[in-house]
Amino acid sequence: MSKIVTLSPDLTRELVQVAYALADAARPIALQYFRRGGQNIENKLAGDFDPVTVADREIERQMRAILAQSRPEDGILGEEFGTKQGSSGLVWVLDPIDGTRGFISGTPTWGVLIAVGPETGPEIGIIDQPFTGERFLGTPDGALWQRGTVHEPLAVRRCASLKDAILFTTFPEVGTPEDRSAFERVRDCVKLTRYGTDCYAYGLLAAGQIDLVIEAGLNAYDIQGPLAVIKAAGGIVTDWEGGPAHAGGRVLAAGDKDTHAAALALLRVV
Amino acid sequence: MSKIVTLSPDLTRELVQVAYALADAARPIALQYFRRGGQNIENKLAGDFDPVTVADREIERQMRAILAQSRPEDGILGEEFGTKQGSSGLVWVLDPIDGTRGFISGTPTWGVLIAVGPETGPEIGIIDQPFTGERFLGTPDGALWQRGTVHEPLAVRRCASLKDAILFTTFPEVGTPEDRSAFERVRDCVKLTRYGTDCYAYGLLAAGQIDLVIEAGLNAYDIQGPLAVIKAAGGIVTDWEGGPAHAGGRVLAAGDKDTHAAALALLRVV
Repeated sequence: MSKIVTLSPDLTRELVQVAYALADAARPIALQYFRRGGQNIENKLAGDFDPVTVADREIERQMRAILAQSRPEDGILGEEFGTKQGSSGLVWVLDPIDGTRGFISGTPTWGVLIAVGPETGPEIGIIDQPFTGERFLGTPDGALWQRGTVHEPLAVRRCASLKDAILFTTFPEVGTPEDRSAFERVRDCVKLTRYGTDCYAYGLLAAGQIDLVIEAGLNAYDIQGPLAVIKAAGGIVTDWEGGPAHAGGRVLAAGDKDTHAAALALLRVV
Repeated sequence: MSKIVTLSPDLTRELVQVAYALADAARPIALQYFRRGGQNIENKLAGDFDPVTVADREIERQMRAILAQSRPEDGILGEEFGTKQGSSGLVWVLDPIDGTRGFISGTPTWGVLIAVGPETGPEIGIIDQPFTGERFLGTPDGALWQRGTVHEPLAVRRCASLKDAILFTTFPEVGTPEDRSAFERVRDCVKLTRYGTDCYAYGLLAAGQIDLVIEAGLNAYDIQGPLAVIKAAGGIVTDWEGGPAHAGGRVLAAGDKDTHAAALALLRVV
């Protein structure tokens, strides 16, 4: 069964360093393909629209090489190359390019997602946006926004009520028809709904710029990095039943616990 | 009646310099408010949701001061402070912060829009995104993307057919119910539709990253900067009847003339 792992300060520091190394390795590869070689990427998508890019695979290969060197006993769950069992009780959860549709459209809303923690959920997470140069980091010691030499603490904001909230999701067609109806119940109560931000929305939530992110049909690797960042910034991420969200599925992220509760109540109405 | 103005190479150079001065002046003001003093901006919006920010007004005041010095005889149409009649036959059309909803949500999709030309339409235009540091410029001599010291020519891309197109708009609720139905006819034919990009979408179209932008309910100052950029990059911007778009209203922008024609046909179906 799964080993119980407690993150000591030393282990936390080491894992953050490795997570940074992964994000640093991803950046130049992602930027080499972003807004370049557009036709190659397009050709790969001919016929079925499957936004898996060359960049995705190159990055994950590079990340796995770094982990093989620095953390050979940890497990890996990656979008592109599946699961590698580990023996340490820690699992790295990697989405080399989250928001591939944004990536192929040229919007700087995609991100490199990295998380690590025990099987019960991530303790350290990164959302990295190579084009804007922003990195959102969450650890058990807190959350940080970094751009070049600028570092700032990340903290969610309070939100007096649902009618004051700014809500983000990627597509107006959220999940199944039932999921979409549930989303629209929340949408109809908030001040402003915006679309098209991919994982960048979770960074904005951790930074106290927006109040809610609602998505459905997520994989574990889509949410674990953002989850750790938002938790460290003081926010809440659950599924639409209020349970754990680290396995993916239908996700509700909020900065404020009352706004979270109000949105959850609307998502649950049958 | 309106004076006929021909842009000589010298006049073009001078106007581009002034346009750059306006965009340069706007950047630090916009960034001073972007993701800062969020609560002040929020308070202004209490009650009615009216995303006019302090930054908007400060920028336009600064721009008008620059124009009073450098181009006193030109007219001005600005979002915040209305129309100033000129005597030169040239009009500056200014949107200090286009995409205020994006601005207050922290997404780098808003922009500073600047256009200048005779009353028949803009000849020089800028879309400036202060946070990413990107500037999209269109002039009678061509179009340019600039970020820091990097300069690259801007050019739209070909698009074989509507079913290969990437379409952008800001909100899924485009204009009136009839406008929305027309938009959805196009949406249902394209490869990918993305939302939430504000004026940044026009820059991506000029850069050959996407193929179509469809919007409704625009003002002249929302479209004149983008129009000049896209025209200079080889694209087409019309209203939904195929006529001039510089007065705003319902706008269809395309990189490829056949894609434009195909989208126009769908928008016009009754």
